[in-house]
Amino acid sequence: MHRVELRKPDGREMTLYARHPLPAGIQAPSPFPDPLTGGAHLRWHPLRGEWVTYAAHRQDRTFLPPPEYNPLAPTVDAANPTEVPDAPWDVAVFENRFPSLGGSVPPPPDLIVPTAPASGRCEVVVFTQDRQASLGALPLDHVALLLEVWGDRTVRLGADPSIRYVLPFENRGAEVGVTLHHPHGQVYAYPVVPPVPQRMQQVALEHHARHGRGLLETHIEAERRDGARMLYEGPHAVAFVPVCARYPYEVWIAPSRPVPGFAQLRDGERIDLARALKTVLLKYDGLWRRPFPYLMAWYQAPTDGQAHPESHLHAQLWPPYRTRDRLKYLAGTELAAGFFAMDALPEDKARELQQVEARLP
Amino acid sequence: MHRVELRKPDGREMTLYARHPLPAGIQAPSPFPDPLTGGAHLRWHPLRGEWVTYAAHRQDRTFLPPPEYNPLAPTVDAANPTEVPDAPWDVAVFENRFPSLGGSVPPPPDLIVPTAPASGRCEVVVFTQDRQASLGALPLDHVALLLEVWGDRTVRLGADPSIRYVLPFENRGAEVGVTLHHPHGQVYAYPVVPPVPQRMQQVALEHHARHGRGLLETHIEAERRDGARMLYEGPHAVAFVPVCARYPYEVWIAPSRPVPGFAQLRDGERIDLARALKTVLLKYDGLWRRPFPYLMAWYQAPTDGQAHPESHLHAQLWPPYRTRDRLKYLAGTELAAGFFAMDALPEDKARELQQVEARLP
Repeated sequence: MHRVELRKPDGREMTLYARHPLPAGIQAPSPFPDPLTGGAHLRWHPLRGEWVTYAAHRQDRTFLPPPEYNPLAPTVDAANPTEVPDAPWDVAVFENRFPSLGGSVPPPPDLIVPTAPASGRCEVVVFTQDRQASLGALPLDHVALLLEVWGDRTVRLGADPSIRYVLPFENRGAEVGVTLHHPHGQVYAYPVVPPVPQRMQQVALEHHARHGRGLLETHIEAERRDGARMLYEGPHAVAFVPVCARYPYEVWIAPSRPVPGFAQLRDGERIDLARALKTVLLKYDGLWRRPFPYLMAWYQAPTDGQAHPESHLHAQLWPPYRTRDRLKYLAGTELAAGFFAMDALPEDKARELQQVEARLP
Repeated sequence: MHRVELRKPDGREMTLYARHPLPAGIQAPSPFPDPLTGGAHLRWHPLRGEWVTYAAHRQDRTFLPPPEYNPLAPTVDAANPTEVPDAPWDVAVFENRFPSLGGSVPPPPDLIVPTAPASGRCEVVVFTQDRQASLGALPLDHVALLLEVWGDRTVRLGADPSIRYVLPFENRGAEVGVTLHHPHGQVYAYPVVPPVPQRMQQVALEHHARHGRGLLETHIEAERRDGARMLYEGPHAVAFVPVCARYPYEVWIAPSRPVPGFAQLRDGERIDLARALKTVLLKYDGLWRRPFPYLMAWYQAPTDGQAHPESHLHAQLWPPYRTRDRLKYLAGTELAAGFFAMDALPEDKARELQQVEARLP
């Protein structure tokens, strides 16, 4: 992996990653002439016992730009800069111009609940220069590079003691609110372990303390023995529709070994994990022969400098469709109770995905 | 409040409620000739430590029926029965034909995670006979009757020792996935305290143990003193945009006194709570002079037979719009991390709603 660190004229950091060495002298562009202003703050939600971030400056952010302007395509005309330079990078990472966390963080207001500076970081990760591509369509070594990039971001962001958790994710498709269709994802670096990873961490810790083994490691073994819902079984990685799927086409992807995060993957594990990911995404797009929307989140150990033998890197993919033409809406029971109701059996949905061919070189 | 208990020809229970006495001899209709079959089961989600319910029979359920058929309108032609009879009821409650919980519950399958029967109950609550009405447009004593009905359902369902939590909610609008536009809501009776109320209960208990006072009671006093986000202040009830709103137009509605559930409301409190609710819903519909979609959930104490001095009945309303023409999508950070990011300040959204007139008799 090759990397170059740059700074945009508006002060934001940018890092370019490539499989081959990058030339010297690359300039990082920005469509925004002015330095970053505004900034977010946190407020404590007393009833749920969690933080919420408020970034009112985000209301001005880019929204469904006309098709002729793509801020994630390389800058070809210096008079009309985009977010990324015209250089032979494979993956580009830069600070979000309208971050929910980090950036220029003002002192928080004095309110009737505790408040705090919204420290942290929101990064945009451009997966490829090709706006027509998709993550699943990229070559295997390009996907593996992305996993290495996520590891590099996690290590670098997590080295800041104010960062407690790093979450790489991709929202794909207009159905999940995506406004820029150039293949990209995001990395959020949180100043706390957020509620969902916090809960999962607590459950995993209790299991590990009681059984001396990882919860997901044990679950993966059970899924493999059962076999009914497996989508990929490689030498080092697996993908399957979990027996407890909360979304009809939910898939989990993980290394077989309980690795706490991307940075701890061995080369062979990373390649096989990339192969598992690419297989799932090709199956998704092949299912109805159209781009398949999803939310994909990669859970890792908190970045608190501690060993986390209970943590096991994995992705959860949550597609919004129930069937080809029906969306699953999260409503009363899912959002207000946190109790998910499924109309489909994971075994049936796994069978649909198993039957989609995904030919990898 | 007057009530009549009936049974539909397919075996489902139905209860009619009215402000005036109901005549004898009402027959409960059903559009379904056959008795209820199928049924759901629970699977344990090991990583999140929560139950998920699987009701594969729900895939056959009514979906966007043609406008000429409304299953929630009174049956006028015995050859084409709906779900409710032609009788002078104000609010009708019946078991969902395609329940996620309860109904005909088969033994759960044997799987690689713990499973359990999906006991519980899913009820449909028809708010009025008038399909053109909306909850906010109903007369005040009709809204108050509905609050009394929710209390009656909570007591009756909660009396079953297998029921641990009763959640009345309304999903309103196609934007939140509603397919039947006749004014109605649902009541879910859960065999466990679901994750969100469980978490809120834990936080409230800790606060009550430490301070000897209710968390929401204290918060309401602080919101009233601050005043910036209040929408309604009556003798016994309040409504406000909370300082920690997670949705731009989020509103909380509560009795000022920490009442654990609907059934413990005094008459004057119930009327004032109805007035607070009606005020908020009129402001919502008045804001953009069109029906305003939302998810409304009413949190109460668990139905475990214990006293719950830490519990404080209240509604949380979560509208899906950020602005008049932009939806707030829940994506990466909200769903995968549980960390909400807001583009708007609650103070600004409260001001918008404060300026909408809501004239009540």
